[in-house]
Parts: sequence; C-alpha cells; structure tokens
Amino acid sequence: MNLKLDLNCDMGESFGTWKMGHDRAIMPYVSSANIACGFHAGDPATMRETVACAIAHGVAIGAHPGLPDLQGFGRRFMQITEQEAYDMAVVQIGALAGVAASQGAKLNHVKAHGMLYNMAVKNQALARGLARAVHDVDPSLVFFGLAGTIMIDEAKALGLRTASEVFGDRSYQSDGSLTPRNLPGAMITDVSLSIEQVLRMVKEKIFIAQDGTQVPVQADTLCLHGDQPDAVSFAQAIRNALKEANIEVGAL
Amino acid sequence: MNLKLDLNCDMGESFGTWKMGHDRAIMPYVSSANIACGFHAGDPATMRETVACAIAHGVAIGAHPGLPDLQGFGRRFMQITEQEAYDMAVVQIGALAGVAASQGAKLNHVKAHGMLYNMAVKNQALARGLARAVHDVDPSLVFFGLAGTIMIDEAKALGLRTASEVFGDRSYQSDGSLTPRNLPGAMITDVSLSIEQVLRMVKEKIFIAQDGTQVPVQADTLCLHGDQPDAVSFAQAIRNALKEANIEVGAL
Amino acid sequence: MNLKLDLNCDMGESFGTWKMGHDRAIMPYVSSANIACGFHAGDPATMRETVACAIAHGVAIGAHPGLPDLQGFGRRFMQITEQEAYDMAVVQIGALAGVAASQGAKLNHVKAHGMLYNMAVKNQALARGLARAVHDVDPSLVFFGLAGTIMIDEAKALGLRTASEVFGDRSYQSDGSLTPRNLPGAMITDVSLSIEQVLRMVKEKIFIAQDGTQVPVQADTLCLHGDQPDAVSFAQAIRNALKEANIEVGAL
Amino acid sequence: MNLKLDLNCDMGESFGTWKMGHDRAIMPYVSSANIACGFHAGDPATMRETVACAIAHGVAIGAHPGLPDLQGFGRRFMQITEQEAYDMAVVQIGALAGVAASQGAKLNHVKAHGMLYNMAVKNQALARGLARAVHDVDPSLVFFGLAGTIMIDEAKALGLRTASEVFGDRSYQSDGSLTPRNLPGAMITDVSLSIEQVLRMVKEKIFIAQDGTQVPVQADTLCLHGDQPDAVSFAQAIRNALKEANIEVGAL
Repeated sequence: MNLKLDLNCDMGESFGTWKMGHDRAIMPYVSSANIACGFHAGDPATMRETVACAIAHGVAIGAHPGLPDLQGFGRRFMQITEQEAYDMAVVQIGALAGVAASQGAKLNHVKAHGMLYNMAVKNQALARGLARAVHDVDPSLVFFGLAGTIMIDEAKALGLRTASEVFGDRSYQSDGSLTPRNLPGAMITDVSLSIEQVLRMVKEKIFIAQDGTQVPVQADTLCLHGDQPDAVSFAQAIRNALKEANIEVGAL
Repeated sequence: MNLKLDLNCDMGESFGTWKMGHDRAIMPYVSSANIACGFHAGDPATMRETVACAIAHGVAIGAHPGLPDLQGFGRRFMQITEQEAYDMAVVQIGALAGVAASQGAKLNHVKAHGMLYNMAVKNQALARGLARAVHDVDPSLVFFGLAGTIMIDEAKALGLRTASEVFGDRSYQSDGSLTPRNLPGAMITDVSLSIEQVLRMVKEKIFIAQDGTQVPVQADTLCLHGDQPDAVSFAQAIRNALKEANIEVGAL
Repeated sequence: MNLKLDLNCDMGESFGTWKMGHDRAIMPYVSSANIACGFHAGDPATMRETVACAIAHGVAIGAHPGLPDLQGFGRRFMQITEQEAYDMAVVQIGALAGVAASQGAKLNHVKAHGMLYNMAVKNQALARGLARAVHDVDPSLVFFGLAGTIMIDEAKALGLRTASEVFGDRSYQSDGSLTPRNLPGAMITDVSLSIEQVLRMVKEKIFIAQDGTQVPVQADTLCLHGDQPDAVSFAQAIRNALKEANIEVGAL
Repeated sequence: MNLKLDLNCDMGESFGTWKMGHDRAIMPYVSSANIACGFHAGDPATMRETVACAIAHGVAIGAHPGLPDLQGFGRRFMQITEQEAYDMAVVQIGALAGVAASQGAKLNHVKAHGMLYNMAVKNQALARGLARAVHDVDPSLVFFGLAGTIMIDEAKALGLRTASEVFGDRSYQSDGSLTPRNLPGAMITDVSLSIEQVLRMVKEKIFIAQDGTQVPVQADTLCLHGDQPDAVSFAQAIRNALKEANIEVGAL
C-alpha cells in the first residue's frame, strides 16, 4: 500500500505595501502552493517572489484565482455568470503561468479562492465555468475542488485530473458539506482531533460527521490555513503524524 | 525583391461597460493586434472577445502591457524601476497568453502601451526590463519597439526577434525621434503625405526629418491608431498604397 | 391645485478616458442630477465637470453612491452588510459634497445606484444603512427611493425628507414592484404610453399594473435614463406633456 | 512665553483585510491625525474607525489625500497636472469630511500624503492645486506643508491658515530641505538627538543643517511616523521632553 497526501496552502496574499501570511515559514511544510493572482490579493512583485519561494522549496505551483474584489479579499458573494467565472479564471491562470514560465517553471494546479470556491461548491454553472477555464488554458493542470462535490464532478466530466480537497480544522455534516462557520463545532481547534480526522480520511477513506455518521471521502489534498497564528506548528504536527503513519506527502 | 510591412493596431481597450475603439471595423485591415491586458485598459471579457476577433481575421495576437493606471489609461508618467517594469510585463503577457491558449492560439508579439512605451524609448533600464520580461516568458515572441532606439537594442541583446516600429501620421526629428506632439508639424494629417512617408520608409529605408535631413530607418511594422475617427479609411488607404507598391502586408 | 414632478437622471458616469451618457444634452431637461461618486463610475475630474454642468443649468445636485465594482458598473449583486452599505454611502456622499462645496454649491439629495438601489428595495437592513448614512452626513438631504417600498419607510422613520421615485418606461406589478426586465412587457417602449403612465401617476396618484389592477402610488420624482439613444427626445416629450398638463417640473 | 507644538501622525492606512500601523497605540500621544482617504490607502470602514478613534482621544481630524496608486501606496512619482492635484484633493477631503460629519465632527486640517506631498514641495503648480482644493472645499481648514517651502507660501497666498511641518528623525540641508534618504545621515536614529533637534526648532526657531549652518525655521507641527516599530516609545519620549520644556502639545 502506498498512501499519499498533498498539503496545500494559500500563498502570495500580500498586496503592495501590505503584508499577509507567513509564506516563507510555511513553504517548507507544504507540497502545493496556491498563489494569488491579483484579483482578490497579490501583485506582480508578490507573485514573482512567491513563485520563486515555491521553486526553492520544490513546492508545486498553483494558480489561486479569486473574485475581482480587492477590498473584500474575494470573500464577498458576487453574482457572476458562468462566462464571467470562466473569463476571470482564464486571465488569472494565464498571469501566474507567465510568472512561472519566466522562472523556468510550470503550473501544476488551480484552486479557486474564497467565495469563488464556495460559490462553485454549490453552483454547477460556476463549477463548470472554472473547470472549462482550467481545461482550455492547459488540460494537464490538476483541478482542486471540495471532495465529493460538483466541483470535482464537473472537472472529471471534462477529463481533467482532480484533487479532492479535505479539511483537518473543520467539522463535516452527514451530507458531506463543511459545517458552516457560524454553527457550534464548525472549527476543530484541538490539533490532535484535527490530525485524527486527517489520518482517518486518508487511511480509512471516511470522515465522521457531526451527527456521528461515517461518510466516505476521497482525500487527495489537505488545506492548511497559512494566515493563522499557529499555522507553522500545525503544519509541523500534521507532517510528523503523516510520517509516522507512513503516508507520503507530495504534490499530485 | 520581397518588401513587407506589418500593420499593427492597439485593440481591446474597452473596460467593463465602457467601450473604446473600432476593433471590429479595423481588424480586417491589420496584420498584428496589440491587445490590452487589464492594467491600463481591458478586462477578462474584452480580452477574450478581442482575441477571438483577431483569430477570426487571421491577425497575429500580441500582448499590450501598460502601466497600472486605469484612470489615466496608462498615459501618465509613473516612476517605476526596471524590476517593476519587468514584473508588470510578465503578468500581463501571461494573462493574454492564457486567453490565447484558451482559444487554441499563441501570442506572436509584445508591444508596450502608451507611457510605458514612451518611457522605455528613453530609459535603458526600463527597455531592458521589458525585453527581459518578454524573453523570460517566451523567447520566441517578437519584441516591438520604436525604430532606431534602445528598445530595439536591448531586445536584440537578449537574442529576441524585434519589430522596428514606424509611424505614418507623425513627423520625425533628425535624431530619429518623433516630433513631440506639442510642437508644430508633429502630426501628419494629410493622408497622401503619410502614405508617402511610409512607402519611403519601406522602399528606401529612410525618412526625411523635419529639417530636411534624410535619416536611415528600419521599418518592420507600422502603427495604426484605431481610436481616431478616420482610422478605418486611413487603414484602407494605406493597404491599397502598399498593394500598388508590391509591398506585402503581414505579421512578422 | 399645484401638481409638481421632479425629473431625475443619472449623470457623471464616465471614467477616465471612457465616456458614457449624454450629460450635456440631457441636463437642460432635468431638475435633479444623480452624480456618480467614483465607486461604480465617475472620477474626480468627471465629478467636477458634472457638478459644474448641473450648476450652470440650475439642476439640483445629488450623490449617486454605488457598489465598489467599477468593472461591473455597480450592477452585479454583492453580499454586503448594513454597515458596509452605510460606510460606502457616507464616503461617496462626502466626496460629492466636497466637489459641490468647492464650487459654492450644496448637495440636495442622494439616490443609490443600480444594484445597490435594487438591493435596498428588498433588503430592509440595507435600506436602513443607506438612510442612516444620508441622515448622519446631512439630515437635510432628500432621500430618493422606489415609491411604496421599505427604502421610503426607512428614510421616513429617521425623519428624512423623501422622494418617491416612479418610472415611465417600466411596467409595474400589482404588488407595487417593477416587472422584472426578463419578463415580457417589462419595458414600455411606446413614448405615448410612458407619458400616459406618468401623467396618471401624478394626477390620479395611481398606476395600472400589468394585470389591470389600479394601485395607489406617490410620484415625487421620475427617473429618466440618460444612457439610452432616444434619451433627449424622450426628455423633451415628457417635459412638453407635463407642461400641457400644468404639472410643474422642479427639484424637491 | 507660550510655546506650543502640534504632533501629527498618518493614520488609517489599512486597506480591507490588510492592516498597517499602530493607530490605537499612538493616538493617545498625538494631537492631529492625518487620515487616509482611499486613494493610496484606507477604505470606508477604516476611515470610520479611525475617525472614531481620533474623536475618542480628542485628536484633531485631518484629511490625508494621496495619489491614486493603491499598489504603490502613493509613493511612486506620477506626472499629474495642477488640475488633477486639485480634483483628487477635493474628492478625498470631501470623503473624509463626510465621515467626520457622520460622527458629529469636523475636519481640522489637510496634509498631502507621500509622493503627493513631496511633489508639492518642489512643484509650485501642484502646491497651488492642493492649496486651492483646501481653500475651495473649506477655507477654515489648516493647510499642512513642509516648513519654509512653496507649499506654505501658496497656502498663505490664498489666505489659508498654515501649519509648518518639521521632522525630528530627519536631518536638514542648509537650503532648508530634508537630506534625501539615500544620503548618509539622512535619518536621525538617536532619540535624544531627535528630541534635541525638535526642542531647538520650537524654542530657538532654528535647526542646525548637516554642514553646521544654523537655519531659521517655523515649527508648528511635528511629524511622527506611526508605522515604525518604536513609534509609540518615541512618541512618549518626545511628549515627556516637551512637557519638561514647558511646550504645550495641541492641535492648531
């Protein structure tokens, strides 16, 4: 048996003079970096520096397209069409691909950011718009989406390789969705419980929902939150736990 | 003898609800389209539509990177470093390359926009920053620059293919520079004189400066201004004149 | 009897190099100008020029705050809180008040733009946020809102003067709402029918809904659409009809 | 004798999710807050919170207009006209005045930000554009400018009250200008030397230039840099020193 898990983290979310995240501290612990492309965060210099940092650590480079809402950090719901989702993804993937190419590297994957991701989990047209964008720019790219949702279905329907994303610090409902953040128990703050959930997902291919139900899940990539104060120590803890469990960490 | 001239025009300079230019009317007459990439003008939908229009007419697709000044349309001088010029060009070239790829096409060239172009004509570091950006993203791209200037020199020094750009509707000084717009005689408004200047540049490889001097010039590509009221009729006139003179029109 | 109607029109919606609308042509026919404040359209120079044009024609100056979405012209739904609606209105009202003050003039009213207006028609918290913003910046300002809706209710609850807005080129439902644009008969394209509806609203204080119901309505101000090709001729026609009906045109 | 000095500090320079400065920590020590207005930094929520914080501490509220360059934080030189400087200042002053009004407060002063300030120190047309903007929006506002420069002259010529600004952590040249940052000795990092320079400016109305010359200076307001790590301790130190020297701290 050859178990494997990708560790991905959002990166490059500074903008101009304003800094965000702890990219350099976390980069050594992840296998995939989702790099902001200038719509919700990021700017040309930050994109260049973040790509360089990923290359230096052998981390896979991914585009992290977001909604065109710098002030709201791409976290506010905006009503957009499939065509708009497609267009904004194409441009952002292209922009980061250009930065990667300028450093002799290639994009590996695409993961939508924030509200664009959340919208695509529930809105099939948007999921399809994003998947079509990835497919049309470069069909060899891996499409990241929430495990068990239409994001993955739409990408597979186009023949894309997919990475089903899971979370260690969020609890799940029995229908496979994440517990909304405004409900009790949405966040798993106990690191040992987080690790337990991740290991169960990879080894047993299930999670235990809040109501106790066992739900099957495909766990290809784990989302690490780089903007949290204990991000680095959590990353270290999860890597140690994966090593002990003989689960390889690596990009897809 | 096999004389040839490329006809290039700035395109895709609408933004959101606001429209600019007569892209669809002029596209049939040009061989190279310089397409705005979202910094001084353009947006994801406009980029897609303009690339599609270029493909439909067999026109070569070029990125047209500009300064990050939407309100000033990239025409206000901004003090930027070589690194900033490099970074903003990389991202914009990548963005348009992504749009082209999504439609099964490839970029052919890069021409800087407005003040970024003007700054690079006089500032060697900026010329080098732009040339390095083009080279690093894709060394097969053609670099457009003002004929006889350091823009061309810097691009050649990196081994890039270059297109020396000339103007039919602007008069020249004996040092090879364009007559500044605020000086008398800067603009050539008589179409027959414009055509005469262009034919002389292609056939005799010279222009006659305002002071009467004959100055050698390399004329690879002619800039057409698409936002002027008589843009289409001038484009037709110049094409007819080139045809009569047995000068082939085509991209580089 | 002393019947009166205000004619309002959105103005100042150019941005940088990009022009929109026919402000100078329509200004002579309206009594209130709603001037964009830079979030969905408008820029400092356009704001200055539009305010000057309104002053020159004795037209009342109003702020026209919109969503922070230049690319989408403030027409895309964005999920914002009451506090965000309040904040963005305060800043935009202040900005235009500054421009008016610099020309020795004062703001008369505030009308929300596009999707911000549409959202406030249905979302009480947003209506309250906008009304509070107007009240807190200057309680003497007139608050424009769709006739018969919570926009007017919320403004009245704060003691603001209100202007109930009606439309001549849109049909109504029996619940008082505008027929959604995607339904048949939403737009009234026949000028004589538009005028008939307006006169009925002012003189009889009713409109006839699509299903034939007579619905009472308060008609303080009529919205003219300045970006439509026949905007000027419609404005002339409605002014003539109002004059013949002895209905005074003037700001509130 | 009744010596007095205003202590001013740039505030409200966060943007959306991105935080900057230590506004809450420094507010207790200053008498004037220069609050960003959304062009180089700041957003509607930040403007509201910063104005509220200033009111809570009895600190005078000032508008801090900057160049329209969010990515460059208003620190990159842009070639703008007097009219553009005027327009961008009017809109930004108005916006902050609206926020102040919504909290029952009034603006006290205006200080240009970053490169806009630096440009106005040397360019008379820009100094005049800024002074005219302040004058036209509200002639009772105090105009902040670098002591001994055309900024102050232009404001005085319009009859504005002025505040001549001096620096404690920068050395001066014998012509009255600040030593450029790229030259040795530009920054005064020794707190006791900084305090010595400030006290000399207030008490003796001179500074000692780098070449030893004694130069007369009018010191109305001292610039504190809130974004530096030791900003709070320096503010405390300077306040204690002023108290011991019987120099009153207060807004103009």
